[in-house]
Amino acid sequence: MKDLHEIALHSRNSYYDLSVASLQLRNQAILCLADLLRDRFPEIRSANLEDYAAAEADHLSSPLLHRLVFDEKKLEQTVEGLNSLAALPDPLGKTTYAEEITGGLSLYRVVCPIGVIGVIFESRPDALIQIASLCIKSGNSVILKGGREAIHTNQVLCECVQNALEMAGLSPESAQLLETREDVSAMLKEDALIDLIIPRGSRQFVQYIMDNSRIPVLGHSDGICHVYIDEYADPALAVKLSLDSKTQNVSVCNAAETILIHEKASASLLPGICDALAKAGVEIRGDESVQKIHSCKPAEETDWSTEYLDYIVSVKVVSSLQEAVSHINRYGSHHTDCIVTENARNAAEFMNRVDSAGVYWNASTRFADGFVYGFGAEVGIATGKIHARGPMGLEGLTTYKYKLIGSGHTLSEMKDGTRSYTHISLHQDCPY
Amino acid sequence: MKDLHEIALHSRNSYYDLSVASLQLRNQAILCLADLLRDRFPEIRSANLEDYAAAEADHLSSPLLHRLVFDEKKLEQTVEGLNSLAALPDPLGKTTYAEEITGGLSLYRVVCPIGVIGVIFESRPDALIQIASLCIKSGNSVILKGGREAIHTNQVLCECVQNALEMAGLSPESAQLLETREDVSAMLKEDALIDLIIPRGSRQFVQYIMDNSRIPVLGHSDGICHVYIDEYADPALAVKLSLDSKTQNVSVCNAAETILIHEKASASLLPGICDALAKAGVEIRGDESVQKIHSCKPAEETDWSTEYLDYIVSVKVVSSLQEAVSHINRYGSHHTDCIVTENARNAAEFMNRVDSAGVYWNASTRFADGFVYGFGAEVGIATGKIHARGPMGLEGLTTYKYKLIGSGHTLSEMKDGTRSYTHISLHQDCPY
Repeated sequence: MKDLHEIALHSRNSYYDLSVASLQLRNQAILCLADLLRDRFPEIRSANLEDYAAAEADHLSSPLLHRLVFDEKKLEQTVEGLNSLAALPDPLGKTTYAEEITGGLSLYRVVCPIGVIGVIFESRPDALIQIASLCIKSGNSVILKGGREAIHTNQVLCECVQNALEMAGLSPESAQLLETREDVSAMLKEDALIDLIIPRGSRQFVQYIMDNSRIPVLGHSDGICHVYIDEYADPALAVKLSLDSKTQNVSVCNAAETILIHEKASASLLPGICDALAKAGVEIRGDESVQKIHSCKPAEETDWSTEYLDYIVSVKVVSSLQEAVSHINRYGSHHTDCIVTENARNAAEFMNRVDSAGVYWNASTRFADGFVYGFGAEVGIATGKIHARGPMGLEGLTTYKYKLIGSGHTLSEMKDGTRSYTHISLHQDCPY
Repeated sequence: MKDLHEIALHSRNSYYDLSVASLQLRNQAILCLADLLRDRFPEIRSANLEDYAAAEADHLSSPLLHRLVFDEKKLEQTVEGLNSLAALPDPLGKTTYAEEITGGLSLYRVVCPIGVIGVIFESRPDALIQIASLCIKSGNSVILKGGREAIHTNQVLCECVQNALEMAGLSPESAQLLETREDVSAMLKEDALIDLIIPRGSRQFVQYIMDNSRIPVLGHSDGICHVYIDEYADPALAVKLSLDSKTQNVSVCNAAETILIHEKASASLLPGICDALAKAGVEIRGDESVQKIHSCKPAEETDWSTEYLDYIVSVKVVSSLQEAVSHINRYGSHHTDCIVTENARNAAEFMNRVDSAGVYWNASTRFADGFVYGFGAEVGIATGKIHARGPMGLEGLTTYKYKLIGSGHTLSEMKDGTRSYTHISLHQDCPY
């Protein structure tokens, strides 16, 4: 077992330097990493084949095996991702608030890194590169824990990250790899040195992390996403969006799990929707009203809060837009929910009242993604409400500090009337 | 003991309505509250006198007794605060990101309330009004727990808040008052209904909350603030800023607890600084180098991480700016720290490297305050790095949601090349 206190301490000290490293050096590390991945690909591939063979011997499910693969195609995608990331503007240093407090005393709010971030992710080894490079670009040190199945691949990949940091003159300890669950438990205790934990996984897993650490947690967990077919839905769109949201990829968090339909639209639209879903191989679990229209399995109470990640969908008839909103706010996971309607007022009502990170009008829930949103890359999709919500890119990995610049200003002078507050907005960036 | 699940449920349902209430209604509630406080002042005053008498009988310390008072002066300040708050612009609804994803598909990031917020605060009853009104303005429901000593005052004040909400046609359950520690423990378990806990108090208290809840916590705890006298400090400013930071008000979190001084400045500047502090009644605890220059008590290792909140200061001589920064990052509480120097390069270095919410150049640490910063009001000063940092006003009480508006756009069409990503910035607010 590793000494997590030592690891966290080195991570923190490296962060102090990385946080003030120039954009050029941070980008250089990212571009060196792209080169290193190409140069060391044979070694990476062989470690990956070793992991794959072990996973096959362990009878891992085929979607999991599929995610484990780091082949030439993944390499090219990863290198392309690194090049795009290097091309993105600096997430640090921007002045987001500037004000004169009183004559000669200026306040600036400036974007800066968070510090040391622990990220726990699943079996995809390319996730390690994505997460580490996002952290480098945003000036944060990262402690990484990937899936056990990918351990050999991750070791080589993390070595590449550390070498790339060194080649850019930065501390390799800004990226460190953990290997066991015990390491994770030990990491969760280092709240004096680690600023944030980002766990990606099931709701249970995220809750376990929350229950065992004082460190703030930005959970990236389940997506119980809904498509609500309004009374004023366009019939063709109702079918098209139900189908894409449910079946374009069933095993991802932004796939729909429940379809709600207004009772006034159910007789006319439900048969077409159900037929299209059934034809795509989707098992339908309906409430009593649905069963009267389409022969299907009955939906149980638990279905409404189940993330199937499979060719299964629960379907419910609601008597009003308000009932749809209440159902989503009660059973959903505040991830992404869609209304299909031609009525702008209902769309606005839905988007304002549904308490989710993504509220969509006539668009597939599958669009909830950092690349799709144009963020260049994402650490994941945050399901909480604090700090970052929805697809979390570079901006989510930053915080800010206030710089106050005076020439001997004291509060006593403000209190005794020597000076008075002006509170004038300044239209300039912090010069320091 | 109260049924916290019921309270949290009602709070959540009220939030769903408050979150879509117009600015006019939210302001109306705030202005009604100001009127009600005036109308019911005799009742408030009499409850407050009852609390005060009980606190005196319990031998509460005089600073605590002082904070407990809600007299006519406090009433006027509170009413003035409510009027200013009502005059502030709407913190909700602003579009902070707008982009065309592909033709006809527009993404908007829009500011919205967080949800249900639990706030635990100390003995000042006027804090109840400040916190509740900030939550109303920002569309959040709030569950309040004040100091035990102020219980009768808080009961009347919370009734006023609830009546004001009702008078504006909003649900009174958007503000609810807890009374016991058991209520707080029960609240911490309602992570499915409560979105955020804001505890104000000692570090131990904030850690207790973090240890006992899955709900995200924005802690407002101790301030171990530093004044660093650089090698290039102006002698007059060194004395003036040390004195104001330490003594303008010793019992607050933004008062300085430690003075660091560069060894090259210590012989010339330390005597003047120490004399001025001693004259103001401050006990000095110095390291060995300090003791050679000024006769004082020795500082122990624990002094560097102690928040005195009293007329005591620890003083240390450092050999470099880097040593000062390292000391602050190691022992400080990431609250507010100041450098006194005439050297711009050293100032920039200090402000960039010190890992605190407030980094000041030639200005007293006492300026760390929401009113001073021009935020109109504050919930407190956040000492973490996530979500809100430093003085936390209305903006800290908001989050955002992504609204995506299309006309039947599917991810399948993006994947099969029917449509392609444009990612063009839109210069317009979300119309819905």
